[in-house]
Amino acid sequence: MKSALSKLGQRTQSPPISWLMDLALSRPHLISLAAGFTDNASLPVDFTRELVDEILRHAKHGQPALQYGPTAGDPMLRELTAKRLTELDARESSRNQSERIAAESIIITHGSQQLLYILTEALCDPGDIVLVEDPTYFVYLGIAQSHGLDCRGVRMEADGIDLDHLEQLLKRLKQSGELKRVKFLYLVSYYQNPACLTTSFEKKEKALALLRQYEKFAGHPIYLLEDAAYRELRFTGADTRSALCARGAEARVLYTGTYSKPFATGVRVGFGVLPEPVLTLATRIKGNHDFGTANLVQQILVKALRTGRYETHLSNLRRRYARKSAVMEKAMEKYFPAGVTWPAIEGGLYFWAKTPTRVKTGIKSRTFQEALNADVFYVPGAFCYANDKSRRKPDNEMRLSFGSASEKNIREGIKRLGSVLHGRS
Amino acid sequence: MKSALSKLGQRTQSPPISWLMDLALSRPHLISLAAGFTDNASLPVDFTRELVDEILRHAKHGQPALQYGPTAGDPMLRELTAKRLTELDARESSRNQSERIAAESIIITHGSQQLLYILTEALCDPGDIVLVEDPTYFVYLGIAQSHGLDCRGVRMEADGIDLDHLEQLLKRLKQSGELKRVKFLYLVSYYQNPACLTTSFEKKEKALALLRQYEKFAGHPIYLLEDAAYRELRFTGADTRSALCARGAEARVLYTGTYSKPFATGVRVGFGVLPEPVLTLATRIKGNHDFGTANLVQQILVKALRTGRYETHLSNLRRRYARKSAVMEKAMEKYFPAGVTWPAIEGGLYFWAKTPTRVKTGIKSRTFQEALNADVFYVPGAFCYANDKSRRKPDNEMRLSFGSASEKNIREGIKRLGSVLHGRS
Repeated sequence: MKSALSKLGQRTQSPPISWLMDLALSRPHLISLAAGFTDNASLPVDFTRELVDEILRHAKHGQPALQYGPTAGDPMLRELTAKRLTELDARESSRNQSERIAAESIIITHGSQQLLYILTEALCDPGDIVLVEDPTYFVYLGIAQSHGLDCRGVRMEADGIDLDHLEQLLKRLKQSGELKRVKFLYLVSYYQNPACLTTSFEKKEKALALLRQYEKFAGHPIYLLEDAAYRELRFTGADTRSALCARGAEARVLYTGTYSKPFATGVRVGFGVLPEPVLTLATRIKGNHDFGTANLVQQILVKALRTGRYETHLSNLRRRYARKSAVMEKAMEKYFPAGVTWPAIEGGLYFWAKTPTRVKTGIKSRTFQEALNADVFYVPGAFCYANDKSRRKPDNEMRLSFGSASEKNIREGIKRLGSVLHGRS
Repeated sequence: MKSALSKLGQRTQSPPISWLMDLALSRPHLISLAAGFTDNASLPVDFTRELVDEILRHAKHGQPALQYGPTAGDPMLRELTAKRLTELDARESSRNQSERIAAESIIITHGSQQLLYILTEALCDPGDIVLVEDPTYFVYLGIAQSHGLDCRGVRMEADGIDLDHLEQLLKRLKQSGELKRVKFLYLVSYYQNPACLTTSFEKKEKALALLRQYEKFAGHPIYLLEDAAYRELRFTGADTRSALCARGAEARVLYTGTYSKPFATGVRVGFGVLPEPVLTLATRIKGNHDFGTANLVQQILVKALRTGRYETHLSNLRRRYARKSAVMEKAMEKYFPAGVTWPAIEGGLYFWAKTPTRVKTGIKSRTFQEALNADVFYVPGAFCYANDKSRRKPDNEMRLSFGSASEKNIREGIKRLGSVLHGRS
């Protein structure tokens, strides 16, 4: 007897992240430089306790927090989110009222992950093409695979996506008649997971113009999906404006963000800014998924944003991660062989370290196995590359997270990994 | 230029519930007997405040509550849920350890709605057939439509699904060669939304046996999906055992339940008991959706269940709804014309009232319009029937909810509706 599984069911693979998480849980002594978790000690326990206490102190305000809310999200949270994004993009100074992001264009979701899923459902049929960064967020590759999508990698440079390569790719897709299957370009634009690169505003604007130029051959809109999950985790430098500020953004940019990482991962609240008809459709799909995100966690964010405690927490968090990233970098400088390199970072949770080409880092490599034997592990770089046949998947990179490990464990983990790498070089 | 929407995107309609909710929001004086909301005054505001205070009082326990957790759900909540279901099915007395529900077979989701969605994704391709009750939960019909499914209605009797009709239907599907497209029978088995019928254990067991008998012609498993969302909202009578106790259930029953309605709808926590391979697949899809349900709300449920406050709240809630249902029934007896009938209920949130055939109740009917003019509204029965061409959709029923309206508004709403109905008869 066959299984009753759907095609999506048959395509949905066990995500590599599950395997890594199981590994971490089964070996408690293991130092994980793999997890994208935030730092336990950084979590706003006291703040959240105070916030919930205030929300639920009086029945009048407490009852709505425990009731269903609108599917698109709490109106006040949508408004505060619109305001915050407007400020981040430094639009407040603008005299042009219409440049402000409208609360009505915001949707609140159960983490931004849920919105990435919903947007994929809303736009993509099996066989459709999504352009992704090379490397990209590996959980998104899992979503794409389960939907039968064909991901094509766009090369990256120090300041983000390689526009020449994007143009070449679009040209080739036009020539092969595949452009009508292209639905969007997926950019993790701030301190990107995994490579921690940030795409400059100029490049986002040019990428959007390129998509616009080619969409007439596609016969339908080609969107720019900007995943800004790490935007608020900035240590230094100025904020980069989002693609929402680019010319032509109103109708073509799908922006996703989250409060989970900057505030608390156990409070799963993400959001998006979407143009029509995608906004209406995403809201309908969200209704089918779950009617709307748990109201209580939305109210926690409303209260945190309004009272300024969100900002206070975020400043602490940024300092904390800046310090931890410095600890990791110093340890890498001390313990890693000279042939291992990594770009400097200005935010986020990760370093992206490259070993000499002959030193493989994949899960079957000696490096990975020896690291495991030394009770330390990382995310193999190869997980983060789409199955794009036009190039070989690089297999000599590691995503090293300083998110969840303590400073002591970061030092110790890098030291152990350094020994393994010295032995391999 | 065409839209870039996927086929699912194009199929996903605005759910009728949105229209009804917008209507309610835009006319605050309207008495809604439509909403499936629970009662604001019943929400456990003080309980939840105490629970969160306890959870977040110490960093040691508070931090994990604000961190990511396993995708399948918090291990303690899975264990408590398994224990609770075992008790509800009165299995505790059983000497047979193996009869207990295993924590490992439980998945925690963002409301049980999310699990209904995930199961549909996991099992159904466009064109597949799902057998549903006639009438059934209308939001499920929206999910099915968005996935391009073909829903076939099974007639209902006072003690639940009509087994003869189910058998006829299976036979016809076998003859027409369509059985291989049938994936599951969807039963809202307790105080069903909308008609408030409960399917007896015997009928569930027989339905399962029938599915089993026909699945050899399908060539794949045909599951019984038991949606027990209203199970805990019982006023009188004994609990009916779930389909999980039926012979052959281990491999073929997909059970979904929720803590949202019995506890608080703003705390969206649902769960399922699933056999393999569905459990593994649902967990993977859940990982793609959102990695796991917000940990904080799961911890609230853990604490509520462990301290007995869940039970205390539930007893109050049952008494409260029993009283409100009595208020509604008394009002209907007093104000409705003799030709309007409804079955007695033993739990849930709804009455299902039938008008004489010539008195239509649909949104374009005079009854609905006149009710709106009198500032009262209900869910038209026709929303709750699948697009099954083998019968005409009944259009002379109303789902009347006593969930969210106050006792005063229930009386007043029924009085107004009674005037409208008297005018129409």
